Amino acid sequence: MSLTSEAVRIGVAGLGRAFVLMQGAFHADPRVRLVAAAAPRAESRAAFEDQYGGAAYDSVEAMCADPEVEAVYIATPHQMHREHVEAAARHGKHVLVDKPLAVTLEDGTAMVEAAEAAGVQVIVGPSHSFDAPVRLARDIIESGEFGALRMIQAFNYTDFLYRPRRPEELRTEEGGGVLFSQAVHQVDIVRLLAGGMGRQITAMTGDWDPERPTEGAYSALIGFEGGAFATLTYSGYAHFDSDLWMGNVGELGHEKPADGYGAARRALKELDPAREAALKSTRTFGSATPLRTPEHHEHFGPVIALLDRADLRLTPDGVEIFGNETREFRAAPGTDRPRHGVLDALVDAVRHGRAPAQTARWGMASLEVCHAILRSAKDGGAPVRLEHQVKTDHGETSK
Amino acid sequence: MSLTSEAVRIGVAGLGRAFVLMQGAFHADPRVRLVAAAAPRAESRAAFEDQYGGAAYDSVEAMCADPEVEAVYIATPHQMHREHVEAAARHGKHVLVDKPLAVTLEDGTAMVEAAEAAGVQVIVGPSHSFDAPVRLARDIIESGEFGALRMIQAFNYTDFLYRPRRPEELRTEEGGGVLFSQAVHQVDIVRLLAGGMGRQITAMTGDWDPERPTEGAYSALIGFEGGAFATLTYSGYAHFDSDLWMGNVGELGHEKPADGYGAARRALKELDPAREAALKSTRTFGSATPLRTPEHHEHFGPVIALLDRADLRLTPDGVEIFGNETREFRAAPGTDRPRHGVLDALVDAVRHGRAPAQTARWGMASLEVCHAILRSAKDGGAPVRLEHQVKTDHGETSK
Repeated sequence: MSLTSEAVRIGVAGLGRAFVLMQGAFHADPRVRLVAAAAPRAESRAAFEDQYGGAAYDSVEAMCADPEVEAVYIATPHQMHREHVEAAARHGKHVLVDKPLAVTLEDGTAMVEAAEAAGVQVIVGPSHSFDAPVRLARDIIESGEFGALRMIQAFNYTDFLYRPRRPEELRTEEGGGVLFSQAVHQVDIVRLLAGGMGRQITAMTGDWDPERPTEGAYSALIGFEGGAFATLTYSGYAHFDSDLWMGNVGELGHEKPADGYGAARRALKELDPAREAALKSTRTFGSATPLRTPEHHEHFGPVIALLDRADLRLTPDGVEIFGNETREFRAAPGTDRPRHGVLDALVDAVRHGRAPAQTARWGMASLEVCHAILRSAKDGGAPVRLEHQVKTDHGETSK
Repeated sequence: MSLTSEAVRIGVAGLGRAFVLMQGAFHADPRVRLVAAAAPRAESRAAFEDQYGGAAYDSVEAMCADPEVEAVYIATPHQMHREHVEAAARHGKHVLVDKPLAVTLEDGTAMVEAAEAAGVQVIVGPSHSFDAPVRLARDIIESGEFGALRMIQAFNYTDFLYRPRRPEELRTEEGGGVLFSQAVHQVDIVRLLAGGMGRQITAMTGDWDPERPTEGAYSALIGFEGGAFATLTYSGYAHFDSDLWMGNVGELGHEKPADGYGAARRALKELDPAREAALKSTRTFGSATPLRTPEHHEHFGPVIALLDRADLRLTPDGVEIFGNETREFRAAPGTDRPRHGVLDALVDAVRHGRAPAQTARWGMASLEVCHAILRSAKDGGAPVRLEHQVKTDHGETSK
C-alpha cells in the first residue's frame, strides 16, 4: 500500500462491454488513471493506446507484470476471472474484479486464497451494491434511526435475455443466464442491506425460451441471521418493465425514451442469428458510442426495505423514507460522478488499506447464493443452507 | 335450485364491517334482495328493519329457518363460519360465506361435507379474486392468446395492523393477523390466475410489534402444477403504501386523498386503547357512514403475471398487456356495479346451479395455503406440500 495522494494507476484486463460501462467513471475521477490494458483484439488495443496513451498488451499476465500498474481492473468474461485474479496476485497487484467473482465456488475459493496469500486487496465490483442510493439505505439501516430491518423485497423485470449475446452468455455452466450476471447484483444489494449473513434460501427458476436455453428468471426467498427475510425476483424475459416504477429511469441512470417499448426483441427479430455475437462486439470498446453521462444514479430495480419505524424505498436519486407519520426524501449525492462508489472503494483499498464490504470473501458469499438458487430450483424448491456468508463490514483495515 | 328470474332473496348473518362493505353491491343489483338479517346487537337489527323492511333475528339459526330466505350471506367473525354454514345447510339454504372459509382445516372440512351432504351451493366470497380485473386476467391467461403462464408476483403493503381492531383480530388462533384475513385474498387471486393447483410452498412471517402480537407480514414462494411459480408478499405494518403503484387507488376502488399519509397510525396513537374495539364497532352497519361508490374496481395490490408472449399487469381498471412488441390496455367493465362478480356467482349458483371457481373446496384449498405459510415459517422456511388443492373451474354444474 502506498500512502500517497497520487492517482491510482490502473491496468484494464478486457476491453469489452464491462469496460465501456466503466469508462465514464474512470474518466471523471482524478484519483485514478488508466495506464495499461490487455485485450485479445488488436482493434481494441489500438483504440486504447490512441485514447489513453498507455501500454496495451495481448496477455493479462504481461500487463500485470508492468511495474507502472498498481491495480488491475478485471473485466474479462466470468469464467476467466480466476486466472486473471491469480495473475494479478502473483504480481502483487490489487484487484477490482467485475461481478460475479467467478462462476464456480471452487474458482472463488482459489481466488480468495490467492488474494490473501499475496496480501493484495480484491474488490468485487462494480455491482449495484455500490450505487449511491443503496449505500445511503445501508447507512440509514445501520444508524438504527428507524429500528431493526425486518423484510426486503427486490425485483427487476428486464429484457436481458434478448439483448445481443455471445453464445456462452446463454450457457449456464459458463456463467451465462441471469443467475451469474444479474442475480448477483440483486443478491449483493440485499445482502448489503440485510447485514450480509444469509442463512437459508429456497428458489425456483425459469428456463422458458428454447431458442435461448438458460435460466432467464427466478424467485427466491432468503432468511438472514437475526430473522430478517427477503424475496428476490428477476425476469430477463420481461415485457413489463419495472423501470416504470423507478421513474422510468434505466439501469444505467438514463431517462428512458418514450418510444423504446419492445426495442430489444424487435432488434433481435430483425437480426441474422449468425450476426448476433458480432453485434455484441459492436458494443465493446473501440466500437461502441461512448455513453452519455446519466442524469440519475444507476439502479437494479425496485427495492423496498421494511424497518420497525419506517420503510425505505430506493429510487434512482436516493431513498424515500416512509416514517410512522411523515414521509421524506433523502438524496444520494454524486449523480455527477458516475460509479464513484466503486472507485472510492478502490482508492481507499489501494491508498489506505481499507477494504470495502465487497471483498473476495463477500463475492464468494454472493456467488454461493446464486448457486444455491440454482440448486434449490433443481431440487423443486428445497431449502439450501448457506455456509460461506460474511458480514457487511465497512472500512475494515487489511493486515 | 329455482329457475326463475326473480331476485334471489338473501338473509344476512352478521351486520359488521363485512356487511357494510357489501351493502353497496346488494343495493345496486336488482338480481338480489335483502329479506332478513341476524345480528346480536339490537341497534343493528333495528337499523336493518328500518332500512330494508325485512325480518331481523338475534340468531343465525332462526334466520336460516325463515322460508323467505333462499340464500344466506355469512359475514360473521371467521371462527363462527362453520356453525353458521352448517345451520344454513341444515335448512337447505345456499351460502355466500365471507373469506376465509374457516380458521381451522378441520372446520373447513366439516363445512365442505355439510354443503355437499345438503346439496347446497357454498361460495366463498367476496374476495379479491372476484375483482373484475382479476377475472379478466384469468380469461386472458385461459384463452392461450399469449402462451403459458410462468410466474406471478403479488404484493401488498398496507396499514392493516393499525386499523381499529377487536381483540380477537390480533390473535392468530382465532383467525386474527394478516394470514386469515389478508393472505387469503392474495392466495385466492394467485391460485385463480395460476390454475388453482399449488404443489409446495415455503414462507417466512413477521410478528414484529409486541403491542399487536400476531403475524403482520409474510413472504411466500409457491410452486404450481405445470411448473409456474409465484411470490406473495404482504406487510400490514407498512409505511410504504403499494397503492402508489396502483394509481393511488385504494383497496376499495376509491382514489386516495393526498393528505392521508400515516392516518391509521396517527388515529390509533390518539386513541384510548380501551376504546379501540368500540371504535371498530362504529364501522359496522347502523353506525358507519355509507361508502361512496368507488371510481375504480377494488384491488389487492400490484400483481404481475408473466406469460410466454406477454406480461399482464393488473390495475384498478383492467389489465395492461405488455406484449412482445406493443403494449395495450384492456378495461374490465362494470366499475359502476361494485362487486358484481361475486353477485354474478351467487345468482348463477342459486338460479342456474352453476358453481364458480370459489366453492367450499376452493376455500379449503386457499385456507390450506394460509396454514402452510404459518407452518413453513414456524419451521424456519421448510417446504410444505399442499394436499387439498383444486383446479380453477368455471361454470361447473352442480349435481
